[in-house]
Amino acid sequence: MEAYTPGEQPDDPNLIKLNTNENPYEPAPRVLKAVREAVGERLRLYPHPTADPLRRKLAALHGCSLDQIIVGNGMDELLALATRAFVEPEIHSTTRRSGRQIIQYFTPSYSLYPVLAAIHGARVNEVPLNTDFSIPRQALIKTAGWKSEVALTYITTPNAPGGQIYRNEDLRRLCKNTKGVIILDEAYADFAPWNTMPLVKEFHHVIVARTFSKAYSLCCQRIGYFVGPEPLITALHKICDSYNVNGLGQVAAAATLDELPYYRENIQRIIQERDRLTACLRQYKFNVLPSATNFILAAPPVGSGITESWFEHLHERGILVRWFPHSAIRRFLRITIGRPKQNRILGTTVGELLKSGPLPWGGKHWSSPNLR
Amino acid sequence: MEAYTPGEQPDDPNLIKLNTNENPYEPAPRVLKAVREAVGERLRLYPHPTADPLRRKLAALHGCSLDQIIVGNGMDELLALATRAFVEPEIHSTTRRSGRQIIQYFTPSYSLYPVLAAIHGARVNEVPLNTDFSIPRQALIKTAGWKSEVALTYITTPNAPGGQIYRNEDLRRLCKNTKGVIILDEAYADFAPWNTMPLVKEFHHVIVARTFSKAYSLCCQRIGYFVGPEPLITALHKICDSYNVNGLGQVAAAATLDELPYYRENIQRIIQERDRLTACLRQYKFNVLPSATNFILAAPPVGSGITESWFEHLHERGILVRWFPHSAIRRFLRITIGRPKQNRILGTTVGELLKSGPLPWGGKHWSSPNLR
Repeated sequence: MEAYTPGEQPDDPNLIKLNTNENPYEPAPRVLKAVREAVGERLRLYPHPTADPLRRKLAALHGCSLDQIIVGNGMDELLALATRAFVEPEIHSTTRRSGRQIIQYFTPSYSLYPVLAAIHGARVNEVPLNTDFSIPRQALIKTAGWKSEVALTYITTPNAPGGQIYRNEDLRRLCKNTKGVIILDEAYADFAPWNTMPLVKEFHHVIVARTFSKAYSLCCQRIGYFVGPEPLITALHKICDSYNVNGLGQVAAAATLDELPYYRENIQRIIQERDRLTACLRQYKFNVLPSATNFILAAPPVGSGITESWFEHLHERGILVRWFPHSAIRRFLRITIGRPKQNRILGTTVGELLKSGPLPWGGKHWSSPNLR
Repeated sequence: MEAYTPGEQPDDPNLIKLNTNENPYEPAPRVLKAVREAVGERLRLYPHPTADPLRRKLAALHGCSLDQIIVGNGMDELLALATRAFVEPEIHSTTRRSGRQIIQYFTPSYSLYPVLAAIHGARVNEVPLNTDFSIPRQALIKTAGWKSEVALTYITTPNAPGGQIYRNEDLRRLCKNTKGVIILDEAYADFAPWNTMPLVKEFHHVIVARTFSKAYSLCCQRIGYFVGPEPLITALHKICDSYNVNGLGQVAAAATLDELPYYRENIQRIIQERDRLTACLRQYKFNVLPSATNFILAAPPVGSGITESWFEHLHERGILVRWFPHSAIRRFLRITIGRPKQNRILGTTVGELLKSGPLPWGGKHWSSPNLR
């Protein structure tokens, strides 16, 4: 079994780190203050076992009840929990085969899904997206390999690694056409023009997944959550580790919800920078896909050197981006949107590298299969 | 399925909270300083995915290699991970039955084990301890229901809820006699006169489980770890969530390892208080079991009122202890050792309650099935 390998987390602070889709801006000053003030005697005490103070605030934010929310040790914990709660393992059962053992998702999307399926011993149904990462029309009319009866369907929207947002009308059709639990993985929703939260209210089998990592600058503290129908959330709580969310993370996330204007401003800045960097790289003849996230996929122009050369040469110049060698997007670099200065340095560096003619490849091997 | 229910976590700071075995002393000043200083821009970045800086320090502490250590989001995450890594679920496989589907443990011990087995769909083999919570001699010679071929054996040592420590010689015999992975759950080892760490080096199937919660005052930050043979630890890392340990928790735990003398002093204080409180309650004719942990089990004297009355009356006077209604220890109160003043107040209150004659029971129902 292939384990999930996260992106490189180098210690060098001089590196321009545009490889794991972190937010370039630090948390709001009042969030930092709240966490600092919480560092004291309370560390000796257990945190709230189900993060209820935070769940109450999230319920108010999303206009739902406390029982429709579960908080996890990052969204990844909850995605893993969902496989265990909603999918029957196949690996030990040679006698039956049914949709109850199937996890379904589009490819490419978040590469954790097949890893979770393998860990749980579930079968997968992978449905290829169109080459522009849009949903194949056939999937909307139940062909193209899309199964209408599976245990669990993951849909990354906006898509990662593609960056595209899907129309809620299309997702609504998919939800209508597909039995079993559907998780709309919205890790990047805050950078998109709309989101799928309305669908939770329309269906009894749809969960929306969110995180404080990307838009709310809290990767370090591991806070993700699901919003969904009460019976599904209750089932997840039943098998979740007690005290699964660390106490300072609960404090940080709760304080974040009091500072949303600060984060909205940063999100707007990142969106502007995303559009600017897209335009800049397109001037250099890069193929940049439209993005509704905090990253872009950019393929170097034909004749300028292969993608791995670009990855290497940028790395040598202190700019760390992401390249996924064994994937449908191996022609692309995935570039997290940084601060304006970082993005400008990237643009300038790309211009300089282009002048030096086709980039040679040093032949180094890189492996980083996950796509978050 | 019964979910795992953690102990009460009340907000009232005036309550004397002796119910969830937390350390009464706050973390070392330098640990608090290190965590406060870490609260800043880095919160936006992912923590080390496998907590390597902390693992390196733990490896040095225990004289083993980095690859022999896995850090978890609390020890509970690792215990759950072990069921998934080492035990075949039975629930979906009606065709075969074998030891590979069995989780074995003594009763009473940590009540999370049956919950983990139920979540995973594993079979359990529960072997009753003697009435004084010692290991039945027969188990050491492979009878008394003890199975020599199971997938996973959990042994809580010192025992919880009993408090007793087992002789390493006895545990060594159990390890020799039992195939499959054995986890020696040492949540309370720091309060005991010896520990089982030497056994890791003697066997290829034995893991020792530790936590920063009890002795190192970091419940809030969720840090536990396993020390074990490299192939077993590697298997666990393969199915573990990436970034499973929050960043500030990693900082706190690493800083803790530089301040061990501070914690050793506190541990000595707690041990002294444990012995003093034991003597005090025995004077009042309580049946107090010998303990090698930071808690004691104490049964009220005959004729003084039933245990639930004692629980209620202490609660009414602002002292929160633990009572496990549906368990083999329902005659006992479990009392976490607090600060000297808290323990004195408990002693005085017990004396006063005894004077008022047999305590009536208000008839409230309390449920708190877990025993940590």
